[in-house]
Amino acid sequence: MGFFSKDIQTLNDLFVHTLRDIYYAEKQIEQALPKMIDKATAPDLKAGFEKHLKETQGHIERVEKVFDMHGVKAKEVDCPAIDGILEEADEVSGDVGDKEVLDAALIASAQAVEHYEITRYGTLIAWAKQLGRNDCASVLAENLKEEEATDKKLSALAETRINREAA
Amino acid sequence: MGFFSKDIQTLNDLFVHTLRDIYYAEKQIEQALPKMIDKATAPDLKAGFEKHLKETQGHIERVEKVFDMHGVKAKEVDCPAIDGILEEADEVSGDVGDKEVLDAALIASAQAVEHYEITRYGTLIAWAKQLGRNDCASVLAENLKEEEATDKKLSALAETRINREAA
Repeated sequence: MGFFSKDIQTLNDLFVHTLRDIYYAEKQIEQALPKMIDKATAPDLKAGFEKHLKETQGHIERVEKVFDMHGVKAKEVDCPAIDGILEEADEVSGDVGDKEVLDAALIASAQAVEHYEITRYGTLIAWAKQLGRNDCASVLAENLKEEEATDKKLSALAETRINREAA
Repeated sequence: MGFFSKDIQTLNDLFVHTLRDIYYAEKQIEQALPKMIDKATAPDLKAGFEKHLKETQGHIERVEKVFDMHGVKAKEVDCPAIDGILEEADEVSGDVGDKEVLDAALIASAQAVEHYEITRYGTLIAWAKQLGRNDCASVLAENLKEEEATDKKLSALAETRINREAA
């Protein structure tokens, strides 16, 4: 990739590439969440991750809908960003001995994942609008709204019970 | 790492580990920004990245100050998350032929970086407060404020001139 090929010529190419990036990311998150559910000890954190797994499956379906609306093939491209974020989540949670501290680490990792999705959906929505695809922007905005809500819930969890116990 | 060693036992251990993670991340960003300045074509984007490079150097100093205040050695730990985000930024910008589209891609990459920093500083501030280190939280909050302001400026740049030209 990169130096010898200039595959992305238009904003539309960039939009489709980034849609494939978030498609890959959502699928990786779908695979990572069951491990996070297993590791979480606080029941409300476990329940929150379970709810988010169902939402993630809905996000994948919405991204597939956007591919379809935009007339391009639903395809994944490698996304080193989400790979790195999930690798780090796995490494850090593997290093934590205490269960309340582990929950605090899991919340922080999940928030890093959410922020990656928030920035990508924000970008995709802006580009969809500039491409005159307000219909695609609306579908992507539903995913963004749920990611932002999840991030807020994780912040609330972090700031109240769990971390206080850990300290 | 991980399976055989449980290096992180307390919230304080997790706080220090994550401070070392953002310290590494800020230093990687300091190295990546000059390349992004070179690639950017719009003068206001180039100027924005130049300003952010100076801010990043200030962020590194503030993180060093927090290490010092907290009585631990300023040290980096590997951060696969920022490595992945920067690798992806480099790959995508290498694939873009058109210069206005390249600027759009650079803005999106920079926003992914900002969001990673925003989530990590948010977490560090919450943990610092729970550890009774409001002094450390205040210093970290200065970095957070600047990252959030940079993200907003990038959104404004993306939504106005640059991307409209690219479409």
